[in-house]
Amino acid sequence: MRNKPWAFDYLKSNAHLVDVEENYKGRIKEFFPKEQDLHIEIGTGMGTFITSLAARNPNINYLGIEIDKNVMIRVVEKAEALKLDNLRLVLLDANHLNDYFQVSEVDKIYLNFSDPWPKNRHAKRRLTHSTFLTSYKSILREDAIVEFKTDNRGLFEFSLMSMNEFGMTFQNINLDVHAEEPEENIRTEYEEKFSSQGHKIYWIQASF
Amino acid sequence: MRNKPWAFDYLKSNAHLVDVEENYKGRIKEFFPKEQDLHIEIGTGMGTFITSLAARNPNINYLGIEIDKNVMIRVVEKAEALKLDNLRLVLLDANHLNDYFQVSEVDKIYLNFSDPWPKNRHAKRRLTHSTFLTSYKSILREDAIVEFKTDNRGLFEFSLMSMNEFGMTFQNINLDVHAEEPEENIRTEYEEKFSSQGHKIYWIQASF
Ligand SMILES: C[S@@+](CC[C@H](N)C(=O)[O-])C[C@H]1O[C@@H](n2cnc3c(N)ncnc32)[C@H](O)[C@@H]1O
Ligand SMILES: C[S@@+](CC[C@H](N)C(=O)[O-])C[C@H]1O[C@@H](n2cnc3c(N)ncnc32)[C@H](O)[C@@H]1O
Repeated sequence: MRNKPWAFDYLKSNAHLVDVEENYKGRIKEFFPKEQDLHIEIGTGMGTFITSLAARNPNINYLGIEIDKNVMIRVVEKAEALKLDNLRLVLLDANHLNDYFQVSEVDKIYLNFSDPWPKNRHAKRRLTHSTFLTSYKSILREDAIVEFKTDNRGLFEFSLMSMNEFGMTFQNINLDVHAEEPEENIRTEYEEKFSSQGHKIYWIQASF
Repeated sequence: MRNKPWAFDYLKSNAHLVDVEENYKGRIKEFFPKEQDLHIEIGTGMGTFITSLAARNPNINYLGIEIDKNVMIRVVEKAEALKLDNLRLVLLDANHLNDYFQVSEVDKIYLNFSDPWPKNRHAKRRLTHSTFLTSYKSILREDAIVEFKTDNRGLFEFSLMSMNEFGMTFQNINLDVHAEEPEENIRTEYEEKFSSQGHKIYWIQASF
């Protein structure tokens, strides 16, 4: 995504939709008109997934988290067009989840096609590394689900190992989502791209 | 495998290689000339895997377990040709492992391309069902490894779930063994067949 010098100002002008400067830190519930379950996606990319999900499920609040302001612009554009009460965004680094959220206030976490960080020395940056699992466990209510989808074999193998070692319980595993694609599956941008290149899509639901 | 009326007699005439009537029940160590670590394969099929492995590792005792006497003939033929001191066979149903072995006397278990039993009502027959995991845990020494390879997606998904739920620790996972085939990989008969049909080969090492 090329750098857009105007990105920051554009996001700030959409303060009703996107929390650009962590104003809702510690009080995310106040960002949504209705008080209902809160599901978050970490690393929304351009936002096809979370905007479709939010349109489908008006009784759930969705918060999209993305670190890159140039990418976030595209999510804001989609969200603005849809005018959904239950969709909000935040420009945030997933390393700061514990500061941003209160303990147990999140009801589900989605991770889609997270950056693979294939080098061993970068393993700590993978969003399924135990460091991240620790923070997910803290912000999630008990028995809540983490749902993770990717085409990256190395990252998925690592994630199965990491979640297993952490003591997470696997609720569901699918090693070829598109073989018999579930009706409820929402394809992300990366999913469309890599599936069309013949990659298998892996998927897991797990809880703490 | 077509029924061979002479199978039983043939196996009995090779009593130095194959335990046809569970004579070594409770005293398997006496079947081998040398006392060394014992690794077993459950469901050897025609025996390419275990005979190659035994030839490669003379310092380990290998016991091949197979329920079907018509199939077992083919393993005996291979073993007879190789004249390996460290390879023995037993005609046994995996449901009776606990009777046949003493507690903690096995050092490793191999499962290769086990029957998938795709119907839910047959789940209990899958060799990675918790019932079987319970008996593996009992006959294995502490920290010993169960190694499982298959091309069957449904069975592998089930096995990941089952092992995770049982509290097993994943030591290694590979969702496409032939992508960069490890030198030490020994292809089984089913592995050759299904890989040539374009199926991915899945593999896991896990301990209790
Ligand atoms: C490979 S893209 C996948 C985008 C989208 N989920 C999809 O499936 O099409 C990964 C996204 O995660 C974002 N990201 C990476 N690290 C992040 C972090 N620490 N916190 C928040 N977002 C992050 C990236 O900026 C990028 O937009
Ligand atoms: C699908 S074949 C795979 C053979 C071989 N492992 C391979 O990879 O080519 C499964 C084998 O397991 C054997 N088997 C099935 N259930 C068994 C049981 N309960 N105890 C022992 N062997 C069994 C079958 O007779 C068959 O030979």
